[in-house]
Amino acid sequence: MEEIGNVIDRANEQALGVLLSGEPVLVDVVLATDVINVLKEKIILHAGPPIEWKRMCGPMRGAICGIAVFEGWASNLNEAEKLASQEALEFAPNHQFGCVGPMTGMTTASQPLIVVENQHYGNRAYCTINEGLGKVMRFGGNDQTVLERLSWIKNELAPLLGQALRRAGGIKLKPLIARGLTMGDEMHQRNVACSSLLLRELAPHMAAVAPETETLARAYSFIASNDQFFLNVAMAAGKALTDPAYGIKGSSMVTAMSRNGTDFGIRVSSTGDRWFTAPVEMPKGLYFPGYSESDANPDMGDSAIVETIGLGGFAMGAAPAVAGFVGAGAASQAGQYTKNMAEITLGENKSWTIPAMDYLGVPAGIDIRRVVETNTSPTINTGIAHKEPGIGQVGAGVAKAPMACFQKALRTFAEQMGVK
Amino acid sequence: MEEIGNVIDRANEQALGVLLSGEPVLVDVVLATDVINVLKEKIILHAGPPIEWKRMCGPMRGAICGIAVFEGWASNLNEAEKLASQEALEFAPNHQFGCVGPMTGMTTASQPLIVVENQHYGNRAYCTINEGLGKVMRFGGNDQTVLERLSWIKNELAPLLGQALRRAGGIKLKPLIARGLTMGDEMHQRNVACSSLLLRELAPHMAAVAPETETLARAYSFIASNDQFFLNVAMAAGKALTDPAYGIKGSSMVTAMSRNGTDFGIRVSSTGDRWFTAPVEMPKGLYFPGYSESDANPDMGDSAIVETIGLGGFAMGAAPAVAGFVGAGAASQAGQYTKNMAEITLGENKSWTIPAMDYLGVPAGIDIRRVVETNTSPTINTGIAHKEPGIGQVGAGVAKAPMACFQKALRTFAEQMGVK
Repeated sequence: MEEIGNVIDRANEQALGVLLSGEPVLVDVVLATDVINVLKEKIILHAGPPIEWKRMCGPMRGAICGIAVFEGWASNLNEAEKLASQEALEFAPNHQFGCVGPMTGMTTASQPLIVVENQHYGNRAYCTINEGLGKVMRFGGNDQTVLERLSWIKNELAPLLGQALRRAGGIKLKPLIARGLTMGDEMHQRNVACSSLLLRELAPHMAAVAPETETLARAYSFIASNDQFFLNVAMAAGKALTDPAYGIKGSSMVTAMSRNGTDFGIRVSSTGDRWFTAPVEMPKGLYFPGYSESDANPDMGDSAIVETIGLGGFAMGAAPAVAGFVGAGAASQAGQYTKNMAEITLGENKSWTIPAMDYLGVPAGIDIRRVVETNTSPTINTGIAHKEPGIGQVGAGVAKAPMACFQKALRTFAEQMGVK
Repeated sequence: MEEIGNVIDRANEQALGVLLSGEPVLVDVVLATDVINVLKEKIILHAGPPIEWKRMCGPMRGAICGIAVFEGWASNLNEAEKLASQEALEFAPNHQFGCVGPMTGMTTASQPLIVVENQHYGNRAYCTINEGLGKVMRFGGNDQTVLERLSWIKNELAPLLGQALRRAGGIKLKPLIARGLTMGDEMHQRNVACSSLLLRELAPHMAAVAPETETLARAYSFIASNDQFFLNVAMAAGKALTDPAYGIKGSSMVTAMSRNGTDFGIRVSSTGDRWFTAPVEMPKGLYFPGYSESDANPDMGDSAIVETIGLGGFAMGAAPAVAGFVGAGAASQAGQYTKNMAEITLGENKSWTIPAMDYLGVPAGIDIRRVVETNTSPTINTGIAHKEPGIGQVGAGVAKAPMACFQKALRTFAEQMGVK
């Protein structure tokens, strides 16, 4: 009988190969119900592992009430809250349906979704369109301005983007992200390069399909004023790249890391859809003027999918300017984060390299064994939401994936492999 | 009597202060004859110090013939060459008229010019619009496609950009360039970030003023396909920043570095418009496939104005990815170029910092004394043109400003200061 270590190594090689050989292409923007059947019901998909209403944090509850009003399931926020607490609304994780969402991660019937297709494997992944900064639903915002913006995104922006993308024949994200890494983005807390490059690629196609110039002016304004516009695209790319790596027997590679604001959950290739959870931690970071850690909600969102594919905190070395923004120490030492993450990953991604580190590939494929052995948690660059619903982002920082998730996963993995 | 060293130090402090306190704003795009009176005559402004036809290099001659046809002064290239060789066309340096131009640097009556206003000092500087890559006039290209592109720029693109800029109330370049430095641009051989950021800022205004969507689609396509679009804007900013620093008595600060493909010339604050020239050198660099050093024309263009203000080769540390492109060694060592240039400059520019070097300001204000004392020439990141007219760019590399320019300037400066 072959040694178990070899079996695992081979399985991990296969899993890493699947991750690295994906070809994510931004192909379309569509209405959620057109692609995710379950959304035809009154169901709300959210970030992170499964969670019931009574354990949800403030921003998650705020977003749920807002989106229920937006969908017309409740006529106001109070009514929405009542529905939710009486279990008249159903909840499920985005990850269960090929979706991801930043922060609260609301995905529902009437929202338009970015479509990223992994053209090597044929699967598709979805994410809503980034709403911009300030008071927005992903941070639990739910007032009239938030809902009106969502309506405009749905009725005007999304159809324009979808048409432009179809005209462009899709936009390949692997080279775009590669370029962003040479321009100081790490694709989690810094997306200014990729947001600009994406607009630059899309602008001519948008102009070619737009009904008139006013629509265009509004669309460009909206995209141009949001340095994080690309985040949701990167997240959908992450989901599209990791989904084909589920279910590889013997692989200890992480396929998802995600948080619902209460629990942190990870998934591992060989254990499929199963979540291994632990209480989520508080990010360490810097707060916007007027806010402090006492205002902060614990770590939240599906956005840690970008770290799962080697970006975000794993690519800190590409983004020295982000180090200061997330309170991660001296900019010149940003590369140390990347080097540390190389200790817990299976390999390096030669398609995504960091010039300042002499074109080192970003560390890819988190191995739960190495996380536990080295006692090194994955580093996640994250936004920090206010703990009360409706307020929004109050800072940015670095979060650690809780070690307990990896310990639990490793125990189950070991059992599965017949190791005590 | 005060010591001469102190007098010079004080004058240099003033000159550096002028350079650093400038506020370059991209305000307009206008027709050349509307702002530069002398262009109403049959005069061709070119890059570098003054030069007569018979000493001009191949690409410069090619560009002159092309632009004479474009202006309608000759009906074909042969006729244009005859006119030029018979001294029926007049030539003068761009720098003499508040202009700069990349490579051959043709500026004539019918071309639209980018206008950068130094809002701290009230002066304006001009540069043509970047034509894109491949066969273009700045590299000596002069065939029908080159002339047609110039016509389209003049008739459709320039009016749209001018209108958009006026609607935007101008675009401040100091913060834009600062941002570009955090995104891997050094503003000479790498302008992808600033080109993208500029398009992103202009796009909504362009949409708001465009007559119809087709014009917009063409304009966005043109700008989006050119990573060097911003170069000409950065150059005009350089000219706008340095012009107020001319004529400060006792200052040994360089106010211009420029090349016409035959001679390299510098100007110094205290000696005003006077050029100190030496034979231009060959850049050391990397060639596009199919070309080698034997195809290359020596160093050319007014673009070294960006090094004069602390960008380009001086800001190499901000742009590790450019190091490979220009053949400047390991990307991780790019910061060494910046450190070396700090040895020959008067100070650091705290508005333009390099994250990976823990926010070191770019070295600004070249002191001819230090260049000579340390025997360290300014490093210039440059494009390399084919030596024959009409072919275009064949590579990119690093050029050295010839030491003899600084030695000559220093001798004159010393005489002026009464030192033997």
